[in-house]
Amino acid sequence: MSLARTMEGLMAGNSVIRKMFEMGQEMAKNYGKDQVYDFSLGNPVAPVPYEVKNAIISLLENQDPHEIHGYMKNAGFDDVRTQVAEHLNSRFGQNYHKDNILLCAGAAGGLNILMRCLLDEEDEVLCFAPYFTEYKSYVSHYKGKLAVVPMRADDFSLNLDAAERMIRQRTKAVILNNPNNPSGIIYSEEELLLLTKMLKEAEERVGHPIYLICDEPYRELAYDGREVPYLPNLYRNSIYLYSFSKTLSIPGERIGYMAISDAVEDGELLMQAAIITGRTLGFVNAPSLFQKVIGQCLDVKIDLGFYDRNRKLLYTELTEMGFTCVPPQGAFYLLVKSPLEDTESFVKLAEKQHIILVPTDGFGLPGYFRLAYCVPYEKIEASLPAFRALAEDCRNWESEKEAEEER
Amino acid sequence: MSLARTMEGLMAGNSVIRKMFEMGQEMAKNYGKDQVYDFSLGNPVAPVPYEVKNAIISLLENQDPHEIHGYMKNAGFDDVRTQVAEHLNSRFGQNYHKDNILLCAGAAGGLNILMRCLLDEEDEVLCFAPYFTEYKSYVSHYKGKLAVVPMRADDFSLNLDAAERMIRQRTKAVILNNPNNPSGIIYSEEELLLLTKMLKEAEERVGHPIYLICDEPYRELAYDGREVPYLPNLYRNSIYLYSFSKTLSIPGERIGYMAISDAVEDGELLMQAAIITGRTLGFVNAPSLFQKVIGQCLDVKIDLGFYDRNRKLLYTELTEMGFTCVPPQGAFYLLVKSPLEDTESFVKLAEKQHIILVPTDGFGLPGYFRLAYCVPYEKIEASLPAFRALAEDCRNWESEKEAEEER
Repeated sequence: MSLARTMEGLMAGNSVIRKMFEMGQEMAKNYGKDQVYDFSLGNPVAPVPYEVKNAIISLLENQDPHEIHGYMKNAGFDDVRTQVAEHLNSRFGQNYHKDNILLCAGAAGGLNILMRCLLDEEDEVLCFAPYFTEYKSYVSHYKGKLAVVPMRADDFSLNLDAAERMIRQRTKAVILNNPNNPSGIIYSEEELLLLTKMLKEAEERVGHPIYLICDEPYRELAYDGREVPYLPNLYRNSIYLYSFSKTLSIPGERIGYMAISDAVEDGELLMQAAIITGRTLGFVNAPSLFQKVIGQCLDVKIDLGFYDRNRKLLYTELTEMGFTCVPPQGAFYLLVKSPLEDTESFVKLAEKQHIILVPTDGFGLPGYFRLAYCVPYEKIEASLPAFRALAEDCRNWESEKEAEEER
Repeated sequence: MSLARTMEGLMAGNSVIRKMFEMGQEMAKNYGKDQVYDFSLGNPVAPVPYEVKNAIISLLENQDPHEIHGYMKNAGFDDVRTQVAEHLNSRFGQNYHKDNILLCAGAAGGLNILMRCLLDEEDEVLCFAPYFTEYKSYVSHYKGKLAVVPMRADDFSLNLDAAERMIRQRTKAVILNNPNNPSGIIYSEEELLLLTKMLKEAEERVGHPIYLICDEPYRELAYDGREVPYLPNLYRNSIYLYSFSKTLSIPGERIGYMAISDAVEDGELLMQAAIITGRTLGFVNAPSLFQKVIGQCLDVKIDLGFYDRNRKLLYTELTEMGFTCVPPQGAFYLLVKSPLEDTESFVKLAEKQHIILVPTDGFGLPGYFRLAYCVPYEKIEASLPAFRALAEDCRNWESEKEAEEER
């Protein structure tokens, strides 16, 4: 074998999201884009705020091209790091300064940097099911272990009893994704206070910091006026990760940041390590022009209504059709329970209706499907007859199966 | 220790280039930018070609923002991959097609992706001294070993005898950086034919492919009409890595590509692995706007004269002052031999003259210093008196030392 043996697992577990996305692309070629209802990929379609284009043009017109396209300190432009720190301070009452901020290639880049910094072979990272499926790979690159806290049956709250039992000496960190992909749940302050209390006790027990990695690319997508609690205010050893992919609809540009406050145990050392790791993992620095762009767009608000309309329409209609859905509170994902026990047959029936959904087995949640409703509203409207037919097909499939079993 | 134990080595060996760069910044603050001659960092200062700005503005004006800032296939935009393939075909007579091309975050991003794809624990990668110091980290992230082929004394040609002896069963790849950083040498076709002949024989001996990773961010910086041979034309199992950092003076933007031709053994598998690895290492995709930009700038030529003038002035003047320099053929680095046996004292004498050089011990080349002459011409002119004083200081230092020894 020419490749590393350890690539086998990685390739076998290749993202089902991407597979479904590519199937959708294929279908669109065969049947026409209008005839395919692709809910596979979290590709933001809310308008890119005009401030993004304005910022780019103003940077091109007014600044030295060597400054905006050139190398800077590996941690990012100092002025932008200061802007990010001040933004977080004014919004969440923190005391960040520029040296607490690392500009990185989205939250995914930041997570890889952290895994490299924290994990020796066999070290563990905890996360809660359902979880973003890529965490497994992020951890395995550095030979760590992702320990997935199982859900209580059909209960999307944090299973803290199980988590507490699973924390051991080798547990270096917990990743929490809030709002959650794929469930669309927002963990409440009450729940997070219980989590952080448990973690503080666990830290005393194991005698070293257990970093709480706050993976929050969906922070701005919180509906019905819900608040997403700022975890660094609740737990000292929090490492905050943010991405502008969803807020500014620029996921291709790979821009986000990591914030490690002075309160974090060994925080300064960890920041130094993260800067060096970011460079040596080949990121070198976050893309430079977009560092400057987000510096000018920190207060730009997303048009939340854009996704909220989709959320309401899809949830209401699917529920009415008889599908069981998890009420979505944040992000742009809707979880639908498979109406059939045999989920593979459900995928096939959906495909027959040209509906592309992502099974969430890989997210630690078998029996469910994720719909990314970051699509044009008209697309959802147009998909409703297909969903209705799918509901009907499912009922027929069940009764045919029953009839077959009776024979 | 909160951090991974394996971070200790990485942090201890933190880039001396960056350390010197930051020292230069500090000095500039204290003495004024004009009074500091900083040759530490390979930060391209040739003008950013106007085509870059034009491409960005035309993309912003004419294309759907969701297309230019959004997700695409992890390998990159299909149209840009096709453009890159066609560019390489017309230039080097290859037969690339889009599926041979992966757009990645510069050559550094591509190298990390390849190391993850190829290396199990203890697998080896060969490189030739002097070598780009970051290779060590790229390999160690995935628990591989960098085996450095030593130089023959003061001979900057490839030490093929030693290389041949060092290739073993666990050797997965050889990295060759041409033009070379830090030496400024361009390996000739004759030399490379000997290398590839040796590698083909070694492949037969070990019974598996030994990939030749062609790390060529400096390809366009070849002076005096020298040609940089295209290695994939000489060796089947070549993996070609390119970056636009130097060609377009946009190193902050992190954009480059990897090309794996159909001829490469297990090449299709390797490309698949690279795409998945790029995603899961947290790159996700190369920055999207700049994918489109380089698609429009593939034939843009750098103003080579910009660096060539610097090269000639610096080489001529330093040689006249009595410094021993390696005649620079490519890239924008000049190697100067330490006039003192005690290199630390030389660094201190240089500092006294506000000259910032990088010792090349970390590049596998003790006793030398790297000058990155990618600075304004006027800077080099202004630095000459300081170099003259340094040469004088070195002579005094030697004679004082002799006098001391006689006492």
